[in-house]
Parts: sequence; C-alpha cells; structure tokens
Amino acid sequence: MAQSHPASTNTPSYLTGDPAGLREFLDKFDVFLFDCDGVLWSGDHCFPGTVETLELLRKNGKQVVFVTNNSTKSRADYRKKLDGLGIPSTVVSSDGHHARETEWLTPYQEEIFSSSYSSSIYISRILQLPENKRKVYVIGESGIEQELRSENVPFVGGTDPAYRRDVQPEDYKRIAAGDTSLLDPEVGVVLVGLDFHLNYLKLALAYHYVKRGAIFLATNIDSTLPNSGALFPGAGSMSAPLIMMLGQDPVALGKPSQAMMDAIEGKFKFDRTRACMVGDRANTDIRFGLEGNLGGTLGVLTGVSSKEDFVSGPVRPLAYLDKLSDLLASEQ
Amino acid sequence: MAQSHPASTNTPSYLTGDPAGLREFLDKFDVFLFDCDGVLWSGDHCFPGTVETLELLRKNGKQVVFVTNNSTKSRADYRKKLDGLGIPSTVVSSDGHHARETEWLTPYQEEIFSSSYSSSIYISRILQLPENKRKVYVIGESGIEQELRSENVPFVGGTDPAYRRDVQPEDYKRIAAGDTSLLDPEVGVVLVGLDFHLNYLKLALAYHYVKRGAIFLATNIDSTLPNSGALFPGAGSMSAPLIMMLGQDPVALGKPSQAMMDAIEGKFKFDRTRACMVGDRANTDIRFGLEGNLGGTLGVLTGVSSKEDFVSGPVRPLAYLDKLSDLLASEQ
Repeated sequence: MAQSHPASTNTPSYLTGDPAGLREFLDKFDVFLFDCDGVLWSGDHCFPGTVETLELLRKNGKQVVFVTNNSTKSRADYRKKLDGLGIPSTVVSSDGHHARETEWLTPYQEEIFSSSYSSSIYISRILQLPENKRKVYVIGESGIEQELRSENVPFVGGTDPAYRRDVQPEDYKRIAAGDTSLLDPEVGVVLVGLDFHLNYLKLALAYHYVKRGAIFLATNIDSTLPNSGALFPGAGSMSAPLIMMLGQDPVALGKPSQAMMDAIEGKFKFDRTRACMVGDRANTDIRFGLEGNLGGTLGVLTGVSSKEDFVSGPVRPLAYLDKLSDLLASEQ
Repeated sequence: MAQSHPASTNTPSYLTGDPAGLREFLDKFDVFLFDCDGVLWSGDHCFPGTVETLELLRKNGKQVVFVTNNSTKSRADYRKKLDGLGIPSTVVSSDGHHARETEWLTPYQEEIFSSSYSSSIYISRILQLPENKRKVYVIGESGIEQELRSENVPFVGGTDPAYRRDVQPEDYKRIAAGDTSLLDPEVGVVLVGLDFHLNYLKLALAYHYVKRGAIFLATNIDSTLPNSGALFPGAGSMSAPLIMMLGQDPVALGKPSQAMMDAIEGKFKFDRTRACMVGDRANTDIRFGLEGNLGGTLGVLTGVSSKEDFVSGPVRPLAYLDKLSDLLASEQ
C-alpha cells in the first residue's frame, strides 16, 4: 500500500469499521498533519469523538500538527478555539499520565500552522522587498494582522475601520490619480485572505496596488469555507474578482502550496515518509500531502469532498474514513 | 473592406486623420450602436467632441443606439446622464432644424439599451419560471431594480438596506438550515450585476440560492468598469466569487451575449449589414458586433483595449480611431 503519485488512479482503502486495517495504517506514521475545518469540527461545532481521537494518537506517540488554511485566525486564536472546543492543550503520554514537554512535544501553540502564519513567513523571510516597498496591503481579518506583526511586517488595510465604508464618487478620481492618502506608496505586497468585510473599495485598492507593481499574494485559494454543515465564501472567493480583473493568479501560500509544506517541515523537522496528511478536500488537503511526497494521505467525509471525489476523482487519498473518529475503532 | 469573421486576422483600418476613409466608412452604415463608458465618456467626464460627433451622425440620417453593459443605471437614469453631459435628447435633421419625431426618430429614452433592461426582458419573456419560483435575488444597484419593475418581475435583495450589513455568527446556521427569512423560497433566479455595496452576506445568499436550484444570471461579465481614466471592479468581478464557488458560469445578458443583440434588433428593427458597433473593448464590444454579423465594427482607443489589442489581438474591429471625435474630420 504505497503512497501514489498525484496523477495516479489508485483505489483508496476504505478503513471505517476495519480495526486491523486502521492499526496497519496508523503504524505507518509518526506524524499526522490535520486540516481542521471539516475534519475536527465544522464552524463552531466540534465533531463527536474529535478529542478522543487526538488523545488516542498522542497516547500512541504520534505527533499532531494542525494545518489550517483559515486565515481569519492567528495561531493564538486557534489555540483559544481548540481550548474552547475541549481539545486538550497538554499531551497525554502512553502510560496515561500527562507528559512533560520534550523536544518533540512542543508547546501547544507551536502545533498550529495557519496560512496567515505561512504568508507572513513568506513575506518576511523569502520575498526580497525593496526598502521603500515593505508594506503589505491586507484584505483579511485580524489573524493575518497578528501574524504579520509577529514577523514585524508593516501593513495597511485589514481590519482598519477606515476601509469599511462605501466607495464615494471622489474615490475614483483619487485612486486614479494615485492619491497617497488612499494608495500608500510604500505598499509592495497585496495579501488577500478571507475577509468577512470585503467591499468594493477594498477590491478597487487591491487592484490598483497590483497594477502599480505590488506582488499579488493569497493566504490560500479555497473557494469555500465550511460552517454549520454548509459552505460559505472562502478566501479564494476574495481573490476571484482580482484574478478576473488582473488576468493574473496570486501566489497562494496555504495548502496545497508547497511553500506551506516547506515551512512546516522547517519548523517541525519530520520524516516525510512517516507523515500523513488528514483532510476533507481532495484538491487542497490531499493534493498538499501527495505533492509534498508524504508517506500517506487520509480523507474524511465530514467536509467538502464526497466519497466519489476520493474514489473516482483526479486526486485520491491513500485511504479514507466516514469520519475522523472512526480511527477510535483501531483500539477494538 | 468586408466585415471579417471573429476568428479572422484582418488588419483593421486606422481612420484617424483620413477624411476620405472616414466618409467611405460612414457611408456603409445607417445605424450605429454605441458603447458608452470609454467611448462617449469616462465616468462623469464627457470626452470633448462627443456631442458634436453624435450630432454629425444624426444630421447625416444615421440612427444612434446607446448599448451599455453598465447595469447600475436604468434607461431612465441613462437619459438623465446623457442630458447632464450635454448630449442632446432631440434629434437634429439634416437641414439643421429640430426634426419632428418620425418612425425612426424614436423618443430619446428608447435609444438606450442597457444590460439591466436586457436581463429583465430575458427573465420576464424568455425564462419559463414555475409559478412559485418567479422572484429574482438581485446583487446590484437601483438600475436593475427599475428595469425589473418595468417588466413586473418581483425581486429581493438589491438596494434593500437589510442586506447591507455584516454577516453575523447566527447567519451561518440560518442559511445552512434554509431559514426562509433569509432565503426566500420563491426565488428562482439570481441576477448579478455591478453592486457598489457588495458584501459577504450577499455573496453567501447568492451561492445558497443557486445551490438550491436558482438560475444563475449576470447582467454582464465585464471584469472592470472605466472611471476617471482608470479601471475599477465591474459586474464580472461581482460574479467571479460565485463562479469560483459554484464551478459554473452565469448566463450573461449583456454584450457580447447575442441575447442582447437579438433584443436590440427586436426593438429597433434594422438591417444588420447596414449597422456598425462602436466600442472600446475588443472582447465585449467588438466581439458583440462580429458575432452579431453586423456590417461593421469600430474600435476607439479611449477605453480599455489598446492599439495592440485591436491590431494584433484575437478579436479585431473592421476599423479603429484614436477617439470617437476623429469622426468629425469626415466633414473636412
């Protein structure tokens, strides 16, 4: 049961209700990278068994890393969310006692890797911006801002109330003329993430920044965001108008971009052949694991992709489950 | 100098400063269909010579029709805009006196054909909607609403202030559950036009209406809107997030859709071989005329497309000018 190439047409193993198959699968991996929305929870609803499943993995010495494309939250926000959902922030050792933090048992917040963090690292450490073009124009929420601050990247836009207003007739002339009170001349990057306050003015400014030479980045390109068992506009939908206007795709920093995998590996130092990506989306999560040459990928049917997507689609996981907590049957 | 097929690679004639060529060109046509933004004006700035050029055409017995994809305005709004810009609303006859209205000299408002009007006609006269699915969910401004009213089409959304608000946590559950106070069960069509008040809630509702079976229409798919000599988000940019989320294109009713040409012909009754489409965009205006088998197309360089687009692009006009008022030189 070797991990297949992205373009291959293997038939994924269906492991729900197969304790022996589950044990065999788990034994192959030391590290599990988890997508969150649609895998551990949907919106504010934690799936039954999520907490117990993560405990089981940790009890068996597996390292858990939460890898999320949701750019609206920072790693600190995610820690709060995980705490609020009852997902433990300490790690239980195999004998059932609380373990001391060891080298591989990193502090909890460090187990979280978000697209806003990945984007901030890319801007601060990879991009070589000219001295006078270091500001980032943000379309997004506070999660992006917090992570940019953590990397000392200056920014404008984001949650600034000055941008949460209707476009005014005089804005057109000011933007067309490059008025520096609307278009900051030091902006060298436009970073687009999920923004619940997207509006016409923000899109107009982002477009003009890119036309004036700014680099076009997206935290991620998921078109939808699961919530309450349904789908809502995702970060990719914020970039979509700009992609259409500019005729240009952004550099996307979230899954399935391998920029994110490289950053995770740089931080957590693991053997890719002993790592498994768990996710609900074939075209982002599973693709991310396959293109990253991880040892395995595991699909769950509690999010976006359907059984048909996993079994017959162009991007197929190594195995799939009805739901994450089906892993608990490995103990039977 | 025969009109070419859309896919052909003719070399357009450059007629600026060529009085004989201009006269020869004008003699071929009885009807001129004009795009407005980028041809007659940009935003609120009327190009010098626009008024005189239209007067010249009318004086020479040409019928003028304004064909606009700008869905934010109704035909009545356009009449006001034309009046405000000094573009005459009566027609001057060839002897210089104001002409009486004759059969071809239709009342001024009837010379205007907008994508919001075209969309309303399509919904009311072409679509066969079930009795309980006749409402339209509108993303757009009052122009669309006025034209829907003129065709007695019921609608929700649009400029209703109830939709101009931030998305709230409880909205996700309500939308996911199909709460009828947010998702009107009688909506059978989603119509997306240019909306200066686009927001997350409006996009989420449009997505869910289409997922529940509503027909996805767009007034037009222009990605940008010219204003003050620059480009801003257009109606296509409002549809872009939905296209990405749904993996489905809307039926577009504005240029270059031939649904619009058929509607114009149905109303104005003209000989297509004696009609010329004038526009600034190769991929909408010029394509519209070419695919409509009009006798000619005329590009102007005061809007979106460049000389290179017209001369070397995939969609080329029969002839092009630096600016519309270069037609005035035909009298020299």
